[in-house]
Order: sequence, then C-alpha cells, then structure tokens
Amino acid sequence: MPKVFVEPIGLTLPVDEQETLLDGLLRAAVDIPTDCAGRGTCGKCLVRVGSGELTAPTERELKRIPEKLRAEGWRLACQASPRSARVSIEVRGTAGQRRILTTSRLHHGPAHPAVVTRMVELQPPSLADARSDLARFDEALGGVNVPLKVLMCLPKTLRDGRWRVIATLYGKRVIDVHAVDHHAPELFGAAVDIGTSKVIVYLFDLTRGSLIDQEAVENPQMRYGEDVISRIAQAAQHNDTAALALAVREGINADLSVLYERQGIHPNHVCDMTVVGNTAMHHLALGLSPVGLGQAPFAPAAAEPLTLRASELGLDMNPDGGVHFPPPIAGFVGSDALAVIAATRLAGKKRPSMAIDIGTNTEIALAHDGRVTVTSCASGPAFEGYQIRNGMKAVAGAIERVRITRHGNVTDVQTIAGAEPIGICGSGVVDLLAGLVHAGIVDRSGRMQEHPHVRQGEEGREYLVTAGPHGDIVFTQHDVRSLQLAKGAIHSGWELLLDTLGVAVEELDRVFIAGAFGNYLDLDAAQFLGLFPPVTKGRVAFVGNAAGVGAQMALIDVRARRRMARLRDRIEFLDLATDKRFLDVFAGRLGFAGD
Amino acid sequence: MPKVFVEPIGLTLPVDEQETLLDGLLRAAVDIPTDCAGRGTCGKCLVRVGSGELTAPTERELKRIPEKLRAEGWRLACQASPRSARVSIEVRGTAGQRRILTTSRLHHGPAHPAVVTRMVELQPPSLADARSDLARFDEALGGVNVPLKVLMCLPKTLRDGRWRVIATLYGKRVIDVHAVDHHAPELFGAAVDIGTSKVIVYLFDLTRGSLIDQEAVENPQMRYGEDVISRIAQAAQHNDTAALALAVREGINADLSVLYERQGIHPNHVCDMTVVGNTAMHHLALGLSPVGLGQAPFAPAAAEPLTLRASELGLDMNPDGGVHFPPPIAGFVGSDALAVIAATRLAGKKRPSMAIDIGTNTEIALAHDGRVTVTSCASGPAFEGYQIRNGMKAVAGAIERVRITRHGNVTDVQTIAGAEPIGICGSGVVDLLAGLVHAGIVDRSGRMQEHPHVRQGEEGREYLVTAGPHGDIVFTQHDVRSLQLAKGAIHSGWELLLDTLGVAVEELDRVFIAGAFGNYLDLDAAQFLGLFPPVTKGRVAFVGNAAGVGAQMALIDVRARRRMARLRDRIEFLDLATDKRFLDVFAGRLGFAGD
Repeated sequence: MPKVFVEPIGLTLPVDEQETLLDGLLRAAVDIPTDCAGRGTCGKCLVRVGSGELTAPTERELKRIPEKLRAEGWRLACQASPRSARVSIEVRGTAGQRRILTTSRLHHGPAHPAVVTRMVELQPPSLADARSDLARFDEALGGVNVPLKVLMCLPKTLRDGRWRVIATLYGKRVIDVHAVDHHAPELFGAAVDIGTSKVIVYLFDLTRGSLIDQEAVENPQMRYGEDVISRIAQAAQHNDTAALALAVREGINADLSVLYERQGIHPNHVCDMTVVGNTAMHHLALGLSPVGLGQAPFAPAAAEPLTLRASELGLDMNPDGGVHFPPPIAGFVGSDALAVIAATRLAGKKRPSMAIDIGTNTEIALAHDGRVTVTSCASGPAFEGYQIRNGMKAVAGAIERVRITRHGNVTDVQTIAGAEPIGICGSGVVDLLAGLVHAGIVDRSGRMQEHPHVRQGEEGREYLVTAGPHGDIVFTQHDVRSLQLAKGAIHSGWELLLDTLGVAVEELDRVFIAGAFGNYLDLDAAQFLGLFPPVTKGRVAFVGNAAGVGAQMALIDVRARRRMARLRDRIEFLDLATDKRFLDVFAGRLGFAGD
Repeated sequence: MPKVFVEPIGLTLPVDEQETLLDGLLRAAVDIPTDCAGRGTCGKCLVRVGSGELTAPTERELKRIPEKLRAEGWRLACQASPRSARVSIEVRGTAGQRRILTTSRLHHGPAHPAVVTRMVELQPPSLADARSDLARFDEALGGVNVPLKVLMCLPKTLRDGRWRVIATLYGKRVIDVHAVDHHAPELFGAAVDIGTSKVIVYLFDLTRGSLIDQEAVENPQMRYGEDVISRIAQAAQHNDTAALALAVREGINADLSVLYERQGIHPNHVCDMTVVGNTAMHHLALGLSPVGLGQAPFAPAAAEPLTLRASELGLDMNPDGGVHFPPPIAGFVGSDALAVIAATRLAGKKRPSMAIDIGTNTEIALAHDGRVTVTSCASGPAFEGYQIRNGMKAVAGAIERVRITRHGNVTDVQTIAGAEPIGICGSGVVDLLAGLVHAGIVDRSGRMQEHPHVRQGEEGREYLVTAGPHGDIVFTQHDVRSLQLAKGAIHSGWELLLDTLGVAVEELDRVFIAGAFGNYLDLDAAQFLGLFPPVTKGRVAFVGNAAGVGAQMALIDVRARRRMARLRDRIEFLDLATDKRFLDVFAGRLGFAGD
C-alpha cells in the first residue's frame, strides 16, 4: 500500500490506491477542514504534493480551486489518490502550528550590520570644479566601491536630490542610492538555517537589529532523498548538483516570498543574508558539488567564509545585496555547528562546557582550557520521530509525554494541544524507551520481552501504547533498535570528547542542548538513556535552534563574521570514523544501564 | 532626391526613389561587383543598410542571397531603392581597402598583461590534511580571489587534472581553471578605440604582446546622429542612454565577431579589453548618461579608471574577463586624448612638444617643463571629408593630392589607387584650399572670387576641380567656409596653448600629428592654413592612430594603466569655451595669411 508522508505534521500514513487522500487523512485523525463529506464541492481539503505522484486533477477540482491556488499546485484531498509507492503532501492551514523548531532562548547580541545607509551632501559641480559625479560622491563617502549599476543611476539621482542623497552601503560597496526627497530606505536582512529537512528564514530589521518574522518550509531537496547521503549520491550519480542547488535556493525563496507578503516588504529592501547549514547543504546552496564529502578524506570544496552577491545565487532579494556563508568546520561538521558554538558562547566559558545539537547528524562540541573540540555522530533521525513506526513531529496530536508504570502500563499520556493522540514525537519516544527499560519490558540488550501489552506485529514484537479511536499506536522492536543505534552513537560521541580533552563528567559546568527536540524532553529519561552526560539539572540548558541564533548573530553584527571565522580556525575536529577508541566505546553504549 | 551615404568609401550620392541603389553606385563609379546587368541573377552586388529605409526585399533577393547573408541583412543593390530621405549603406567586399585609419608608427611597448596563466600542482587531500579544495588552491597561487563560477568547477577540475591545473588569472581574480591534460589556454586581448564614426578593435596575443589582426566598423550610433552633440541630445530627449550604449557595444561585438571568424578564436579566450574614446563615447559604452556633458559645467559622470567584468557590459568575450576604461580628462577631452599623450610619450619629453589629434573635436596637448596641458577645439568634420560637397574618405577614387597653378588651373591630380576620381579626401581638401588661396581665387577673408573655373552652383560659387566621366567634382564657397571655421578653431587652440605655457613656436621640438588624416597630407599646405604650428619638417611626425596605440599600451601592459591614471591626474585642461582670449584669437585666425 502506498505510504503518504504528511507535512507539516510529519506523520506517515498508508493510503490505498483505491482510497482518496482524504480517506487516509481522516482515518489518522489529521485535522483537515472538510464540509461536504468528500464530494468535492466545499473546496476546503487542500493539499499539495511535495514528491511522488497523485491521480490527475478532476473536473471538480478545476472548478472549485481558485486559479491562484491551482497555479501553486494545490489539490483537493477528496479528489486525489496516490499513484506512486511514496508520496509526500502538505496540508494547508491546519494541523496546528508547529511548535518550537525555530525559536531559541539565546540572544543574538547587539546590532552592527554590514549594510547601512548614509546621507551625504555634495558640492554641485561648477566651472571651477568640474570633477566627475563619481569623484565627488566617492569623496563624500570616504572611498567606496560603486558598481556599474549604481554608477548608471548616479548622475540623475544626484541631480534629482539636489546633491543630497542617501547611499546604501554594504561594507565599502554602494548597493543603492536614493535622492533625499525620498524616505530613507528600510533595511532588512535574512538569517537562513538550511536543515536537511527544513529551510528556516528569520527576517530582521537591520537598523534596529530586531527579529520581525520567521518562516520555515520543507527543504525542496527532499524530493531527491530524505538524508544528506542520498542527496550526495544523487549529485554524484546524476550530476545533479545544479538541480539540488536550485532546489535549496527555491526553499529560501519560498520562505522569503511568504515573509514579503505577510510583512509587505519589497525584496529590494532585503540587502543582506547569512546562511548556515551542514557542509553538504552549505555546498549545495553555493552550487558546489558535494561529491568530495561522500568519500574519504571528506575534503570540502570550500571551507572559508564566503560573501557573494545575491544575484550570483538567484536569491529573491536586492541583487547587489550580500549573502554571507560562515565557514563549515569539516566535511561532516557544518557552519551550523559553528553557529551553535558561537551562539552558546562556548569558547568563552571559563569552565568545561558542552553543546549538543541533536539531529540526523548530532554535533557535539566541548570547550575546556582554551581548546574547543567538536565531533559529529551519525545518529540517524529516530529521535526526531522519523523511521519510528508511529513517529511524528511535535505538533498537535503527538504524544509528547508518557509514563510507564513498574508493571508496564501506560499512564499520564500527554498530547500536544490536548488533541486525540495520532502519533509519538521525539520527547514521547524517549519517555517510552526509558519507561520500557525501567519496567523490564525492554531488557539491557534492547530485546523486547513477552508482556500482556506486547504483541506480535507485522515486523516483530510491538508494545501497544494506546488503542486510540483512529487506530493503535505502537512502539516496536524495530523502533527500539533504531533508537539504540542513535543513542549509542551520541553517548560514544560525548564520552570520547570528554576523554580527549581530559574532562570528567562531573567537571562539566554547562551542557547546552540545541535543536528542536530538546525543549519538552524529560531530562531524567534522556540522561538515563545516555543521550546527555549525567550532570545535575541546573547545569543543563535547552536552547532551541541555536544554529539559527548563530546565523542571526552574523547577520546583525558584521564583526561576528570575523569572530566566527577566527573561532572556526581554532576549533579542533575529532573524527570518530578514524578514532581507534570508537568501536569499543560504541559497542559498550548500545545497551542500557538498567536500574 | 534621397541621399545615400556609402560605406566604406564615405561618399554621399543622390539616388532617385525610382532608381535602384546599383544605378546610383555605378553612376558614381563605385567599384561594386555585378555580372548580370542588374537583373538580380548574379547575386553579387551586396549592400547592407546602416540607417534609413529601402524597398522591401524582392523574390529574386530571397532566392539569390544565401540564408546566412540574408540573416545578416544583406540586400542586392540592383533590387533595392531608397525609401527615406537619408540612407546609409555598406558595400560588401569592394571599393578598395580603407587606408591607414587604424595603423600607427608608434610602438605600444613591452608585454606585461593583466591576465596570465599559471600552472600549479597541489597536494591532494588526505585524512591528515582534509583542508578544502579552495584552501589548497588559494595557497598554491599565493592568495587569490575565486569567483563562484570558477569555484563551482574547481573540485572536478582538480581531480580531472590529478591536482595539476592551469589557472587563468586576471590580477588576483581567477577567471578560469583547466586540468593540465589540456593545452594551456591561449590568451587574447582586444584594444578598442571608439570613435564618433568608427569603432576599431585591435586583437592581440597577450602572451607575446603582438598584434594579430584588426577590424573597424561604422559606429552603430550613427543611426542616432552623426556627431556627439546630436547623440547627447538623443540621450537627453528620448532617455535613450540604454539604446546608445547597446549600439556602441554592438559595434565592438561586430568587430570581434569578424576577428573571431577570421582568426578561428573562441570568444572565451579573449580575457581582457581596454577601451578609449571621447568622453561621450566613454560614458555611452559604460551605459552612463552623457547628459551632463551637454551643458555647463560639463561634469562627467565618471572620470576615474574603471575596470569592469565583460559580463556587466554584454561584450562577446570571456564573461569573467576584464574591461578597462582609462579615465577621460574632462567633459570634452576623452580617454582617447589621454591615450594619444601616453602613446607619444609627450609627458616625458625634455623639450617642448605638442600632439594634435585632428577630428570632429581636435585635441591638442602641449608638454613643457613638467607640465602637460590639453585643450579641445570644436573643429567639425570638414577635414575628414564630411560636410564637404564632394568630400569622401581616403579610399580608392579619392583625390588625395592636387596642385593649383598660379593661374588657378588644376594639375597633378592624384587619386588613391590611381582610380578614376570620384571625390576628394581630407589631404586633397587641404591642397585645394591652400592652392586656391595662393592663386587668389579665395581671398584672405575666404571669399571666392570670379574666375574662369569658378561658376555659380546651386548653393553659391563653386570651383570646378575636374569634370570626370562620372560627374563634376567641385569645391564650393560653402566648403571654404566650413574649412575656415575648422582651421580657425585648431589654429586658435595651439596658439593659446603655447601662450598659456609661455612657449614660443620656434621652441617646439616635436609636433606629433595623430589621426587618420595626417599621413598623406602636404605639410606645407597644412602649415600655410595654420592647422599646425610652422616648425621645420623634421620636427613633425605623422603618427596615425595614436589613440589606438594608447589603448594597446594599456592592454598589453597592466602597469601602463596605473601610469596613465597618474598621467591623467597631472594633465591640466585649458577650457577654450571660458577663455577670455579665445574669441579675439579665433576671429584673427579665420582669415588666410596670404602669400
């Protein structure tokens, strides 16, 4: 039966080819608006295909969907059925707002943007002083670089403004010039965090240094593969770097377009951008082949701070504006990790401090005694709710907290927004796994035991979490194995880092937990599983999307770019893949300590 | 009756709307191939319209003209008639090669181009040294600027070349990179001299610093007006800067395209260009509005040395190659004048030296005692054969030398290539005017006297030069007046320059005569008319297109660009328009000294 992946809630549903998408969505209790019982007349159950194929649009859809929405690819869920083994769809304006993901408790610091406006008044030319327009403009601004496009409009603007003009400067480059009659142009900037699955854009007022709005879309590269490795393979095998680059830029532009409409901003007024991401995303956003990242010695094509013009990248902002890419650290440790280290001010801590950014790749950094060392663990997406049978993202209907009694019974099921449970998100998965180990239903080796709540499912044993009105929610032996591999990798990572810098766990002063996953997590359960070092609660800070904050710091303070570049050159990389200690430690951390 | 201006011979013909172009061309003895007596079957009498309108193409033309030529706009002269009051046409492959114009006796100096190739060998990455491709490439080249387009192909090229590559560098910017398996790329450059009427391109082998070929086309801006002022007016009134910019770039590209085909060169291998011209041409080539040049205080939009990327200007060469514009000196003294001063090495002369570049604007520079002063005279195009009744350019059939006896008879008529006379070129005009004054047929005030060879023409008195088989060639009272204004302006120019720097005529050590016009001129006649200071023959050097040589110097030696920029800042500008002495001197120099 075809599998349908539903955005933005992150749920995977089986939907038969004979069924409509609406049938599947309603069966899983997805909160999609519909007023006509699937007859195709109310026009409300709008969905859009991300990847995969659906049946062709019906007459009713052509009639009911406004032309603008149709042009954007929207369909009616009640009229469409899957036509490929995997389909990903987006449900329109429903299913609750995604929670967290984009926010952080860290602060981005003071504003000192790369782009500023300056008002200048020039002496008009006279017979005694017939110097060129460019010469007097350049002198008034104290020596600048005037691109041809600006130079072309300079003579008219100077005269229109009676020799009083406002110049928009990106460093020493003039990117715009206005007559003083006009209002001083507003200056906006965008900080971009390119995740493997998500592209987040933060829109800033650069003059005030304040966040105005933010938006996230699925990374359009998802259509080329769900993880980094499959996208690198795509680029290598099909020579598709250009297509992958186009896809990620399309994602940034999609966010920008929503922000422009919502805030009533003209793209020309967005004059600066910073972009962070893992090294493969960094390369692809630049149009650089990521092929070198797919094989030893994993040398990146570029790992320097780069500032390009927006027009070179086809981004929908001021074409002469700058786009700054902080440097990645290594082939598997991107500029997002650098951004996390910068945002947590890790390198400046007096006592040993650690930052952990849990994701498909989990980056862990440890600072001690002037050294900063970082490592990357291939933890897989299990803790994000992916590749877990009933996993989903942290949105309405997801089980986010659950307790298992000593006897193995489920109590205290807590769902996001108090909705009927439709799946389990990351924090719920951690609760379940820890609870099942405590109850002895999962043994120390990770094997699921016989128990009244454990039954034989299609793929082996499974624990029945709840028999909801919309179908059973289970936690399977396979789910346990996925999570074991993930936690084993993460546990080995922080343990080897501590070992490398000679820091004992109890010496750790601060542990920053970055990433979407952290905020609603039961710390005891996570520490029991070995996801984080066992330090006292007061020393752990959940900081949300710290990578985004790092991108924001670089956006609103141009000096932070140089600081991050210097920081990057100081950071040491611990390569677990070649570390002789790794396999031993990893094997030892796959099991559970028990209680 | 419509007037047809014939390129490349520069002749203006009346052609009735009932006639074909071929009728008019044959009547004027223009040497155009035709084998079928105008029946439209031989397909040889090819012409192309520059401006104005012809009748629509006939069936025969569609049949006889090869598709490629048709696409380029070629027509058969025997099938087309004028349909507008003025038409300019180009005759294909005929009428003799244009003489001089593009050559010079000056040498451009040693090669030290802005663009070079460098072979580098890099250490491949290893687990111990996983620095980025960019980092090791940059290190090998000692610190360079790698544009995104080059960075995008760097990883593959490095691996294809097994870490041995050839980089093409424009200063510190890498514009291309090749694997060493390939041949080292050839490097070419183009020096461009944009005249008001002509765009000349010199193609150079940059590695050897040697001239390979050259080509000239009519400046496509001719369709917007024949002189600079009418083009400035066009830009001002119709906001047509963009169209004028496009036209001149089209002219450069037309030259390049001929050179590419003739020399079998790929546009990507032309990596550098220098462009000189008067200030209006300089502005329009850059797409800058020339409007400020049309009114006091004549401030240019830009008078700094500028180096752009070819892609910014839409020139048909390597898009990342550079296009350098040496600076103009003032609103009416362009970078072509700077190029002449540089090419004649005027500023380095120990004794007082002068350079005169005769054209529609005549620039005169005087160097003495460490000072270089330049002025510009609005001399009009009369000495180039324009606006003279039977004037034409120095091509086959033009009367280039002629003697008038004491009694006013014509002797020793000498035509270029010994062809039947069809018009008079610049040197012939000077001979005629000086001869007529000597014979007393033109008096000291410039009035034409009664004489057996003087008759009453349509526009007043005219002197019959020769009654050739293809119509009378005459020299009119109006021609005399045009030439008086021109020589008065030029004479005033050099005289006031000498006065300004306190140099007596006899102190002048060298007088360089630049421009197409000089080479075949009778020096005595020209000096008699006051075109040049009366110094002994040995001190006068006819140097041809010195502006082109200046552009070549800047092309093949990047250091010459800085020298020219410094030279420009030293040059003083004598503005005749605001000089109190001018009107007095000009009035005194309109007449003839007599003999």
